[in-house]
Amino acid sequence: MASHEPKKIHLNLFEMNTVGHISHGLWVHPDNNRHRFNDIEFWTELAQLLEAGLFDAVFLADVIGAYDGFRGGPETALREAVQIPNNDPAMIVPAMAAVTKHLGFAITFSTTYEPPFAWARRLSTLDHLTKGRVGWNVVTSYLPNAARNFGYDEEVPHDYRYEIADEYLDVTYKLWEGSWDDDAVVQDRTNRVYTEPTKVRYINHVGQHFKVAGPHLPQPSPQRTPVIFQAGVSEAGRAFAAKHAEAVFIGGRSVEKVRANIEDIKARAQALGRSPDAIKFFPGAAIIVGRSDDEVARKVAEFEKLRSVDGYLAHAGAGLDFTSYPPEERIGDIIARKDPGYERLVQRYHPDQRVGDILAHIGRLSSGGFYVAGTPKEVADALETWVDEAGVDGFNVRQFLTPGTAEDIIELVIPELQRRGRFRESYEEGETLRERLFGKGRSRLPEDHPGARYRDPEVRAAAGFTTGKPGGSALLAGEVA
Amino acid sequence: MASHEPKKIHLNLFEMNTVGHISHGLWVHPDNNRHRFNDIEFWTELAQLLEAGLFDAVFLADVIGAYDGFRGGPETALREAVQIPNNDPAMIVPAMAAVTKHLGFAITFSTTYEPPFAWARRLSTLDHLTKGRVGWNVVTSYLPNAARNFGYDEEVPHDYRYEIADEYLDVTYKLWEGSWDDDAVVQDRTNRVYTEPTKVRYINHVGQHFKVAGPHLPQPSPQRTPVIFQAGVSEAGRAFAAKHAEAVFIGGRSVEKVRANIEDIKARAQALGRSPDAIKFFPGAAIIVGRSDDEVARKVAEFEKLRSVDGYLAHAGAGLDFTSYPPEERIGDIIARKDPGYERLVQRYHPDQRVGDILAHIGRLSSGGFYVAGTPKEVADALETWVDEAGVDGFNVRQFLTPGTAEDIIELVIPELQRRGRFRESYEEGETLRERLFGKGRSRLPEDHPGARYRDPEVRAAAGFTTGKPGGSALLAGEVA
Repeated sequence: MASHEPKKIHLNLFEMNTVGHISHGLWVHPDNNRHRFNDIEFWTELAQLLEAGLFDAVFLADVIGAYDGFRGGPETALREAVQIPNNDPAMIVPAMAAVTKHLGFAITFSTTYEPPFAWARRLSTLDHLTKGRVGWNVVTSYLPNAARNFGYDEEVPHDYRYEIADEYLDVTYKLWEGSWDDDAVVQDRTNRVYTEPTKVRYINHVGQHFKVAGPHLPQPSPQRTPVIFQAGVSEAGRAFAAKHAEAVFIGGRSVEKVRANIEDIKARAQALGRSPDAIKFFPGAAIIVGRSDDEVARKVAEFEKLRSVDGYLAHAGAGLDFTSYPPEERIGDIIARKDPGYERLVQRYHPDQRVGDILAHIGRLSSGGFYVAGTPKEVADALETWVDEAGVDGFNVRQFLTPGTAEDIIELVIPELQRRGRFRESYEEGETLRERLFGKGRSRLPEDHPGARYRDPEVRAAAGFTTGKPGGSALLAGEVA
Repeated sequence: MASHEPKKIHLNLFEMNTVGHISHGLWVHPDNNRHRFNDIEFWTELAQLLEAGLFDAVFLADVIGAYDGFRGGPETALREAVQIPNNDPAMIVPAMAAVTKHLGFAITFSTTYEPPFAWARRLSTLDHLTKGRVGWNVVTSYLPNAARNFGYDEEVPHDYRYEIADEYLDVTYKLWEGSWDDDAVVQDRTNRVYTEPTKVRYINHVGQHFKVAGPHLPQPSPQRTPVIFQAGVSEAGRAFAAKHAEAVFIGGRSVEKVRANIEDIKARAQALGRSPDAIKFFPGAAIIVGRSDDEVARKVAEFEKLRSVDGYLAHAGAGLDFTSYPPEERIGDIIARKDPGYERLVQRYHPDQRVGDILAHIGRLSSGGFYVAGTPKEVADALETWVDEAGVDGFNVRQFLTPGTAEDIIELVIPELQRRGRFRESYEEGETLRERLFGKGRSRLPEDHPGARYRDPEVRAAAGFTTGKPGGSALLAGEVA
């Protein structure tokens, strides 16, 4: 990009198939439609709104358990609708895809509890249905209750979850990038050949955690591997992001902290042979915008008044209850003792933070990182500052009201960004999600991404891929013979 | 139903998210659109066609492996597009739901390889999104390659798979029927109560195969438990159908055989305390209809000419190759020896059938059970005969061409059935799939179904359900205290 052109800003809507995602208590606001999340129209209307407003994508968070560590049970989470009830995030994507042509979708899915073969197939299906508009936000799940929903008595340890995740992604790369050649499907009606059999392979994966024969069942989809999103904070999470992520949901409360986090992950990625531009960075963004200072102040006051501190406590604690600790307690000490539920803390807090500090900030509108309440000009100034000074590529926009927050951004913020040359004026036709992030013609994983290596016949041969007979026990045809 | 009213006929379209489902070779027909199965428009257009034509539902088959037992590998399946490439069936349902209001969806899913907690949540999500229009076709998977895609070296034995399935359904019933009370969600904005916590329970399931804490994450959906479909032929399969199924995809090549199969399953169901009317029966139906005898003959000749016997052999054998056996070989002997791939035979054939007989019939248009080629009047006569004499409730209509077969049925057969009072003139407003099959007001599992017992507080208490603290270790509130 030429230096005289201002860097364009990407905007995703931060969503979840639930009532209360991260703005706890606000479901009671009379203009809030969160209670309609079970309805297909909630999602199709939202998708059409976002596409009319030229948003990049919907980023769909998820949890697969209840927050039942606060006050000894799930009561608060249930009463305040803190991410429960919730529904599967992937299932709403085809409905939104059916009524849009450009909007992207990033879907959270955990590598800890479900088999990679089935998930790889689901994502390929979605990549086909959306014509290349999907991403996968890779998580490893931190809720003790999630572990108990999938056969475990307690959480799988944090670093071990990342080991599993690393192999999980390796399996999916083999299926997505190596199992079918680009030209395997020939659809030759005259000679009655749908697929050229020598161009489809068993992957014969045998690892520490998974054993998967293949071949992949779907034929190659537009992006093959969906865009890999990740939100790593811990040491293991950062290492994982540096290796696998193409877009990172980055944390940090200040420009300086976010820039440092970005530089750290970029340096780690470079050390692994990846381009420093291979990863895009998105902080969460709490944006309250109004036409006047009075309108802004009124909105802020409303949201402050309706927020539920109990809801935030139930959410923040996940497996444990912050209010049961003395304020001077160090997070690092809770982790060191492995108190039940400590896993969430590894992922979310710095060891030197103290419980009292967390409690003092909890539930504040400004506590999540990027926060601005102001007129369109003030909001655009703040967004530009973070893009130019922290080096972020865009934002995951947190919602206070649905669809009110997205409507406000579309009506007031995006036009201001467009005037400044900071936001697209229209979508490119036929663009995949990866092209939207990295540019025209870049629908596939770049060559320096670890998943791309399975395009290489020599790498495949060394990894044990075969054509012909099942089980890798004999070969009938193909390059590894 | 009064005896002077003719029994209405239900029609489902038999589909699969793949190229060649069960009409192998016909993808090459110039009017066939099977090669478009990756496109969302293929599914949204089909769903709108079926709804305009008043079809009951789309029945979505599935396999999670390749048919690689024929001639020692997957070559034939790949070349002839025998159920590969294929995509996930559940993912197309929200897209079809977004463009329809009445059409039902029965989704095939196997209980052998994926965790029940995640699947129960996906189906609840779909039941919400479709407003109660989903069913689940329960299968246990027979392909050796499927087993190898999910960490096994060979197939999980047939009867053991049904043991797993039985517990799997028990877990899902607990989540669907027992975890949330009907009135748990109160959405009281004034008092800031979304869900009444005492009305949501952990299920604390600990069984032979699964350990699942709950609570279920979705709130109650219109049907709660989706309509349970099944297609059991083996002894274990029939026992399973008699216990769990509400709709059975029934086999049998003649009116007499089908009637006997239905009577057998009904008797088994009654022995378990279920009503004889608790299960609806659907054979597959191969229907070739034309305005004249000439048109019918032309279509039959076309389909005969284009069919792929190799494709049928690859499909029928699944894990083994029929052509490698002498014609006089008994199926029962292959099963007794447990030849690799014998599992499929248990499910599909009678032990006294001989390989030569199977090979002689394979791929014939008429070999799947109900078959009629004729004018609308002849087709309607045949359908009526099976309904009145075999006791079936409707048909799963096999496709030769997509969307040609459905178009023919809608244009020629349904109007003829309507003239005879055998088919609906319109959909009921707001009808769930279970209501469509069993009548107005019957959206939920009937009381005599085993899944319904978890509505009973005493049954739940005995099964270890709890409210309050996680893990069932202590109680804070609720009926089991």
